[in-house]
Amino acid sequence: MVTSSICTIGDEILIGQIVDTNSSHFARALNGIGVQVTRMVSFGDDRQVIISSLERELRENSIVIVTGGLGPTKDDITKPALAELSGSTGTRLDREQLEIIHRILSSRGLDILDVNKAQAVVPDTCEVIPNRLGTAPIMVFRFSRERFGHECTLYSLPGVPYEATGAIPDIIKDIKEHYPTDDICHKTIMTYGLAESQLAGKIEAWENGLPDNIRLAYLPNPLTGVRLRLSIYGGARAADDALIETQLEKLRAIIGDYIYAEEDTDLQETIGRMLKKSGRTLSCAESCTGGMISHLITSVPGCSGYYLGSVTSYANSVKENVLGVPSEIIGKFGAVSSECVAKMAEGIKRITGSDYSVATSGIAGPDGGTPEKPVGTVWIGVCAPGRTETFKLVYKNDRKRNIERFAASALDILRKEILKDLSSL
Amino acid sequence: MVTSSICTIGDEILIGQIVDTNSSHFARALNGIGVQVTRMVSFGDDRQVIISSLERELRENSIVIVTGGLGPTKDDITKPALAELSGSTGTRLDREQLEIIHRILSSRGLDILDVNKAQAVVPDTCEVIPNRLGTAPIMVFRFSRERFGHECTLYSLPGVPYEATGAIPDIIKDIKEHYPTDDICHKTIMTYGLAESQLAGKIEAWENGLPDNIRLAYLPNPLTGVRLRLSIYGGARAADDALIETQLEKLRAIIGDYIYAEEDTDLQETIGRMLKKSGRTLSCAESCTGGMISHLITSVPGCSGYYLGSVTSYANSVKENVLGVPSEIIGKFGAVSSECVAKMAEGIKRITGSDYSVATSGIAGPDGGTPEKPVGTVWIGVCAPGRTETFKLVYKNDRKRNIERFAASALDILRKEILKDLSSL
Repeated sequence: MVTSSICTIGDEILIGQIVDTNSSHFARALNGIGVQVTRMVSFGDDRQVIISSLERELRENSIVIVTGGLGPTKDDITKPALAELSGSTGTRLDREQLEIIHRILSSRGLDILDVNKAQAVVPDTCEVIPNRLGTAPIMVFRFSRERFGHECTLYSLPGVPYEATGAIPDIIKDIKEHYPTDDICHKTIMTYGLAESQLAGKIEAWENGLPDNIRLAYLPNPLTGVRLRLSIYGGARAADDALIETQLEKLRAIIGDYIYAEEDTDLQETIGRMLKKSGRTLSCAESCTGGMISHLITSVPGCSGYYLGSVTSYANSVKENVLGVPSEIIGKFGAVSSECVAKMAEGIKRITGSDYSVATSGIAGPDGGTPEKPVGTVWIGVCAPGRTETFKLVYKNDRKRNIERFAASALDILRKEILKDLSSL
Repeated sequence: MVTSSICTIGDEILIGQIVDTNSSHFARALNGIGVQVTRMVSFGDDRQVIISSLERELRENSIVIVTGGLGPTKDDITKPALAELSGSTGTRLDREQLEIIHRILSSRGLDILDVNKAQAVVPDTCEVIPNRLGTAPIMVFRFSRERFGHECTLYSLPGVPYEATGAIPDIIKDIKEHYPTDDICHKTIMTYGLAESQLAGKIEAWENGLPDNIRLAYLPNPLTGVRLRLSIYGGARAADDALIETQLEKLRAIIGDYIYAEEDTDLQETIGRMLKKSGRTLSCAESCTGGMISHLITSVPGCSGYYLGSVTSYANSVKENVLGVPSEIIGKFGAVSSECVAKMAEGIKRITGSDYSVATSGIAGPDGGTPEKPVGTVWIGVCAPGRTETFKLVYKNDRKRNIERFAASALDILRKEILKDLSSL
């Protein structure tokens, strides 16, 4: 099996100012083509440390992915270190990357400075994969058996997550062209509503009964739920698909209610597809989620086809004056109540004229809880054609995570209500 | 200077199933007492890999922090590996940890199993720091100069973030008792409005003139702008603060207009502080940003003290019916126009009764642009007491990044308008 090491360069990681998330994305992609990740390493912006660390990784792995240290500024010394490591005697200008740099800067109305131009200059020992999302080119160094005892490749990418993860398809393509990779059959099942441990408990017998060549991975995410990934390494594609399908039939019988998609997607995209299919529209009224539900819905391209808008009624005055929630309701039941979210959902549906609406009111924390309504309590209201439903959930996380759970749970509840109508069509 | 390495053990990290956040917390704590983190390493649940990897880290560092691999299940092999690494010939039961295990399990209404008891059994070569938050004890292995060429210490902790980070105070206390520690002086400057390369160009002369013992790092982020971090290692705290302050005075003279804070923060938190200080309130009207501005503002604890709410007017009908934007304005100038965002800002300010408001209307893409208004175009409107201002910006990114840039730019423009009023107070 081809082995790899993922390295991140940057003092900001070593002092704990930022958390490295790039490595995790690369690890998933590499595992996806049957390349084993043996180690992840982070080290600082020090030329000798970079060289000696990368030499070690190259000796022990066929593929070394390096992110970080390619910015235009002085604290970035990865490029000269890579030039020394690869025994470069000169540099060359990569015209394609220079054009991209020109395009990016001019589109931002910026003049191109020497430091920008310098980014398109690379050691003459590397190949370049153009970075279309940023100014720093992706450098590919290929080392012969003589150098490290085996043929190996080093990929150097910028550390900016948007650029690094955006380059993953190009890197994977290059690896497949140069190394024997397994044809891996992956099937992704999206679930929501069960914690990872609950899910594992429910499907334990099924999991134990899986054929040996099927690997199962749990990929939990607060916004999308737990993703189940079934993988078959190095088999024959058609047969694998059939084998996985027979297992899926059993799985659906056990946790069908929690499965919202059988491909890699998310709740907002799934809701968007359902609304397009039914030709219906959506609006939302948010209190504790503060705009996150609307943000998630509008992150889907083309959402203007079904999404009308929202009101974030953070203050009770906005709940009353904009959404028309009677002040008596808030006075009698409080803003965090079934009655209030019902009125909020009905209010936003009325003023936008949407077919569906979803509303949230809760306590994200850290302050503001009571014994009856502790921090983490949320009421969710959904209006569908001809009905209004409300639901109460309680989570125990910090503010950020509570807001994420509230928003995702509201989307999942909305999804189930839309599904009822679709089924009855 | 005392050096350290932070290691995480677990296949789940190497397949990209989870992101390691423990290391970042430990890095901040270690830097805080002047212990330099030279490397972060993640490797898999393999006994020989664990032993050889840790031997290397111990040879090169005085302190090695290890998290993960201490759970009760059979795939956790860190403890036997550490026994072998430390030349342990026997085990002992740690009574204090056993009591904690009993207490934790009984509080969950669980019977204590042999696998649970086994967690209190440790190699006879280690000291134990009780883990009050979980069942696995914290093991401390102290190695003599003979073994690794210098005296060094290995701390082994469970990987559960809640338990690992919860143990940080105990670990730091032990390190301070055994190693010479000192303060590291860090100063963070938050800037917005200049790309990293522009900023580097503007302050190049200043950067070149920095004393050799000051390190400068650029940390760009689409939502917070470029963070500048100045660090002095191993000096005397008071003198360092003074030294950095003299440099900052020069820096303020060059890019003062772009600096929005001199501590590690973000735009929404900064705006919150300003509004609390002035006792004024805020609302927003979002089109292309779809709720993200409101989401960012409400991510700040205590925002209910100054934030009233927002309307996401994705459909023009909502701009007209809820925000009261005259249909003639949209008909004549279009929704993406100075006139429209001005009316949107005035509308949300009117219906919420806020002192300030910010509004956005633009084209996030991927579809919907025109030659006059290409994808990436955004109009931003701000209402302050007695005035309405509008601004046009053009970015060229994908949908997700465009939305982030639109939202962050709107917050920065809002911040500057609030600042005008604060200065004139």
